[in-house]
Amino acid sequence: MSAINTDITADGRQGFIAIDWGTSSFRLRALNERGTLVAQSDSANGVSRLDRDGLLPFLQAEIAGLPDAARAYPVILCGMIGSNIGLRAVPYAQCPLDPATLADQMASISATQDESPRMHIVPGVCARGATGELEVMRGEETQIIGWLQQADAAQKQRSLLCLPGTHAKWVQIRDGQIHAFTTAMTGELYALLSEHSVLVQGEQQFDDTAFLAGVEASRSDSTSSGALLQQLFSARTRVLDSKLHPQHSAAYLSGLLIGSEIRHAVAGENHPPAVQLIGSERITRLYRQALQSMEIECHCHDGESLALAGLAFFARQLAPRQTAPA
Amino acid sequence: MSAINTDITADGRQGFIAIDWGTSSFRLRALNERGTLVAQSDSANGVSRLDRDGLLPFLQAEIAGLPDAARAYPVILCGMIGSNIGLRAVPYAQCPLDPATLADQMASISATQDESPRMHIVPGVCARGATGELEVMRGEETQIIGWLQQADAAQKQRSLLCLPGTHAKWVQIRDGQIHAFTTAMTGELYALLSEHSVLVQGEQQFDDTAFLAGVEASRSDSTSSGALLQQLFSARTRVLDSKLHPQHSAAYLSGLLIGSEIRHAVAGENHPPAVQLIGSERITRLYRQALQSMEIECHCHDGESLALAGLAFFARQLAPRQTAPA
Repeated sequence: MSAINTDITADGRQGFIAIDWGTSSFRLRALNERGTLVAQSDSANGVSRLDRDGLLPFLQAEIAGLPDAARAYPVILCGMIGSNIGLRAVPYAQCPLDPATLADQMASISATQDESPRMHIVPGVCARGATGELEVMRGEETQIIGWLQQADAAQKQRSLLCLPGTHAKWVQIRDGQIHAFTTAMTGELYALLSEHSVLVQGEQQFDDTAFLAGVEASRSDSTSSGALLQQLFSARTRVLDSKLHPQHSAAYLSGLLIGSEIRHAVAGENHPPAVQLIGSERITRLYRQALQSMEIECHCHDGESLALAGLAFFARQLAPRQTAPA
Repeated sequence: MSAINTDITADGRQGFIAIDWGTSSFRLRALNERGTLVAQSDSANGVSRLDRDGLLPFLQAEIAGLPDAARAYPVILCGMIGSNIGLRAVPYAQCPLDPATLADQMASISATQDESPRMHIVPGVCARGATGELEVMRGEETQIIGWLQQADAAQKQRSLLCLPGTHAKWVQIRDGQIHAFTTAMTGELYALLSEHSVLVQGEQQFDDTAFLAGVEASRSDSTSSGALLQQLFSARTRVLDSKLHPQHSAAYLSGLLIGSEIRHAVAGENHPPAVQLIGSERITRLYRQALQSMEIECHCHDGESLALAGLAFFARQLAPRQTAPA
């Protein structure tokens, strides 16, 4: 990352340190009062890779390594760092939820008793599905807030967001709020089936045609979620049937799972709204292909940039607090 | 196994050796001309556990170990031994299919060039789904033929069979024929998710209530197979939500998957016929519980006994051939 939009600043008043600290990755960006990136650090030191007691020392060492001025900036953190395996378990904020309310629920902590709070952890977000089932996210909410910062009025009014991943999130935006969301286990299931099942055997090569055949196969006349248990087996029988090259099983399976996920997410909507895809180029490309083959409009957004935009929003919300008279 | 029904004989004319040789197990039964069990052998020497070149020597050693008279009996084999990792790849017989037609398609082979064929491999069975998707089975067809031997006229006319397992089979019987069938990856998916996913963590204890909660959770208003990707995640969120004990995640997951499988299999039938469950006591008990909670009638049958009954049927079909003038 070399260019940072100048609108990503803490209101022009102060610099800040933005940290997206997930299960398996750590991403730090220090931005000065003009919104210029002055330092950055990326590593695989995710929350699950360090001892819980080692989290704060690791963070302090990272901050100590920053340029002089940046070391005093407030720190905004999001992701699993706010979970029970992180620095502090921050309760989930409840949907429906607007960005300012989420900012109000940040947990502010100090490194030592003498120090005033300068670390602020963004809460995860929870929702209840139609059947009362709990839904949770930690980290994605900050990308969503980042997306809202750049959305136009109509998009803020009503949008459908998809954040693909190990546990993909489908998010309904209504009236500028995170209205509700659901989770699909697509990424984790794909990894399990690719690595351990009879469906994928031998070396694999990604193939667009096989991927799109999988997307097509996810179309089902059935009215039952159990159809997937049966559709999955076609990844094997199509190879036996000489309709699928064994090297393309994983691509087919990827299409079948992503196709199933998308069809479920847009089911019941006669005219599905354009899907706002948020994630890395690698993963949004696949979802875009699948959505295009279903003739559903979509727009791709870089998840890392939106996370930074979200953290900048939270930093801006912080500024009035810190400058307000005691 | 100590008692064998006397109707399981090769027509009272000759003894026979019945072998169910699957991927991970080998089961041999030698029955004399009166249908009395004279020898048996069970081991984990499934087709995948031995070199392909080692299959015939292993079988010959097993036969050499039998009582004198039994060593000359014809041998009827079913299961993966008829696949491309077995003794010989026997082409699939096509549905719809009656038992006698299946018997006609047995592959007869000799151990040596001088010997007349005395080993007979039951073919696997294939079918085409409504969408043209290929379905295959090897081994289950023999249990189905065994079931048909004991079925009454109404059952032969129209029945729905379920053979749970790694790749569960749902079979439609029409007019005494194997009419069509489908495969659900339930068993394999359950094993993968239990062993490798975030859904099941720590030591597990089977719990009937959690299992039935899973069956209930598989009920979905969605008209999409992708709903399962989302329902699966409830195994985790219900633990976070204190609605499911972490030790009971696997039981809940089992109920969710088996429930989804059953709902899909009976979908579209207003009055699902009684389900004929074929398998081990351990697995049919779970399916029976799930079916009962959905108020669907079911009957359990021991898979091993039915496999033997099926092999006996094939042995009877063989007898006229062997006694016919050359």
